[in-house]
Amino acid sequence: MTVTERTTEDRYPTRLPHAADLVARADPTVWPGRIPGPFTVDDLAGFDRHGYLVVKNLLGTDEVTSLQTEAARLADDSSADDPRVIREKRSGAVRSVFQVHRTSTVISALVRNPAVLDRARQILGSEVYVHQSRINFMPGFTGEGFYWHSDFETWHAEDGLPAPRAVSMSLALSTNFPYNGGLMVIPGSHRTFVPCIGETPADHYQASLREQEIGVPARHDIEQLARPHGIDQFTGPAGSALWFDSNVLHGSGNNITPFPRSNVFVVFNSVENTPVEPFAAPARRPDYVAERDFTPLDDARR
Amino acid sequence: MTVTERTTEDRYPTRLPHAADLVARADPTVWPGRIPGPFTVDDLAGFDRHGYLVVKNLLGTDEVTSLQTEAARLADDSSADDPRVIREKRSGAVRSVFQVHRTSTVISALVRNPAVLDRARQILGSEVYVHQSRINFMPGFTGEGFYWHSDFETWHAEDGLPAPRAVSMSLALSTNFPYNGGLMVIPGSHRTFVPCIGETPADHYQASLREQEIGVPARHDIEQLARPHGIDQFTGPAGSALWFDSNVLHGSGNNITPFPRSNVFVVFNSVENTPVEPFAAPARRPDYVAERDFTPLDDARR
Repeated sequence: MTVTERTTEDRYPTRLPHAADLVARADPTVWPGRIPGPFTVDDLAGFDRHGYLVVKNLLGTDEVTSLQTEAARLADDSSADDPRVIREKRSGAVRSVFQVHRTSTVISALVRNPAVLDRARQILGSEVYVHQSRINFMPGFTGEGFYWHSDFETWHAEDGLPAPRAVSMSLALSTNFPYNGGLMVIPGSHRTFVPCIGETPADHYQASLREQEIGVPARHDIEQLARPHGIDQFTGPAGSALWFDSNVLHGSGNNITPFPRSNVFVVFNSVENTPVEPFAAPARRPDYVAERDFTPLDDARR
Repeated sequence: MTVTERTTEDRYPTRLPHAADLVARADPTVWPGRIPGPFTVDDLAGFDRHGYLVVKNLLGTDEVTSLQTEAARLADDSSADDPRVIREKRSGAVRSVFQVHRTSTVISALVRNPAVLDRARQILGSEVYVHQSRINFMPGFTGEGFYWHSDFETWHAEDGLPAPRAVSMSLALSTNFPYNGGLMVIPGSHRTFVPCIGETPADHYQASLREQEIGVPARHDIEQLARPHGIDQFTGPAGSALWFDSNVLHGSGNNITPFPRSNVFVVFNSVENTPVEPFAAPARRPDYVAERDFTPLDDARR
C-alpha cells in the first residue's frame, strides 16, 4: 500500500482538539475577467460581498417539469441498499440521492446547460467539473432541517479540497417559501473560515449526510458572524437558483407545513483546485460524494 | 364524591376513536357592535375572515422593556419543581412559565391595560377573564417548534370550554423574523373545527405542554385547510401583537438561528363561555393552565 504524501500547506486548519481563532479567508471568492458569462459586474460584486446570489427563473417551465419528473423517478427507483440514497433518520423517507450527474442523463445535461455551466465557469474563472451532485427532498409535515455549516469545511477536511474555489447551485424544484425549510444563509460569512472542534471519526460521512455533529461551528462563532448582517433566506418558485460560495455558512429549519421542498444541488469545483488527500480525516470519502474524475465539463457547443 | 352532570350539548366532538368529518363552525368569530374598542370595522372584518390580526407596536418601548425585564426575572426565579414552569424536552431550558397573570404584578397590569383589554372585549362582545396566560421562551440554536393545532380543540376537550368564544394575544418580547420559529397561522382555518383522533390519557397536559401527540389534526385535514389560503407568518419587532381566534390552526418551526424569541401569551375568554366539565378528558386540568375564577377583568378606569 502506498501512502500519498500531502505536501500542500493547510491554510484552513479544522477538526481541532481545542478552540481556535477564526481564519480570515486568503483566497478570492470570485475570479472575474477570465471567462465571460451571463452574470453582470454587479452580480459578481454582490456575490463577492454576500457570498451568494439568487437567479430567478434560471430555467423555463418545460425544463423544470422535466427535472421534477426525473427527481421523482430517481427517488422512486432508489433501492434500499444503494449507498447513494440517504434516508430521513426518523421516517426513512428518501432525503437525498447522490451522484446524479453520472446516473441521470437529465442531470448530466443540466450541469452542461450553458445557463448553468457558464455561470460556474464565470465565477471560478476556470474550467470546472462536478465535485458533488444530489437531489434533495424535504417532505412536508416531518421535514428535518440541517444545522449551520460551511460546505468547504467538510470538503477540505474530508475530501482534501485545498481552497474554497468551488461554487454550489441549489436549483428549486418546488416553491421555496420562508416557512418550509428553505436554505438560510449568513451573508458575508464566506470571508471567514471557522475552524471546528473535534476529530473526524472513520466513515463519518455515513452519519454526517443525515445529521452533522462533527464539522459544526461553535455557537459564539455563528453568533459573531450573524450579528453584523443577519440572516437571508432563499425563497422563490421552482426554477429559481441559489448560487453560493463553498464557504458561506448556511443551514435550514425543519418543515411542518404541508408543502414539501425539493432541489437539485450541484457543486462545481475549479480544475485548478482539485482535491489532494483529506486534510483532517482518516480516509477519503467515496466517489459518489466526492468526485475523483476531474475531467472538465464540456458543453453542447464544443 | 359528586359527579357533575354535564348537560351542555357537544357541537365540537373530538378525541374520537376513528376519523370524522370536518365540522363547520356554528359560532361567530367576532361579536361586533356590543362593546366599543380600538379596532376599526375593517380590522374586525379581517379578523373574522382570516382568524387573526396583527397590531404593530401595540405597546411602547418603556412598556416592552419592563415586560422583557419581568420575563427574564420569572425565568430566572423559577424553581425546578414548580409545575407552572415547562422545560425543553432535550435541553431542560425554561420553555414556558404559566399563570403569570396571577403571579406577576407586571403581567396582571398588562391584561388590564386598556390597549389590551378593550381589544379582547371588543372582539368577544362581552366582559372577559383570563383563561390562561404564560410567557414563552424559544432559545436560539436549539429552539423546538410546536406542531399544528387548534387551541380551542384542547380547551374544549380538556377544559370544557363550550364554544370558541375566546381570543388569544401573543405579544412579542423579541423580534419575530420569518426564520426564528415564529408563529405560523393557516388563515381561514378557524371557520372549521377539525375533530382529532385518539382518547385523552389521564394527566395528558404534563406531556402535551412540551410536545403534543393527542389533539393533533390529521395531515390531510391540515393540507385541505392550508391549500386554499396558504400559510401566514407573524413577524415584527418587540411590542407587536398577534391577536388570534381560539380555533385557528397554528404551529411553529424550530429555531436554529442565534436569535431567541420570547412572547407573552394571554387567552381571554368570554364570561358568557365559561367552562363546564371537560368534553373529552377524564379530569379537569389544573387551574394554572385553565383558570376557574371567572371574575371579569377590571381596568384602572373603573
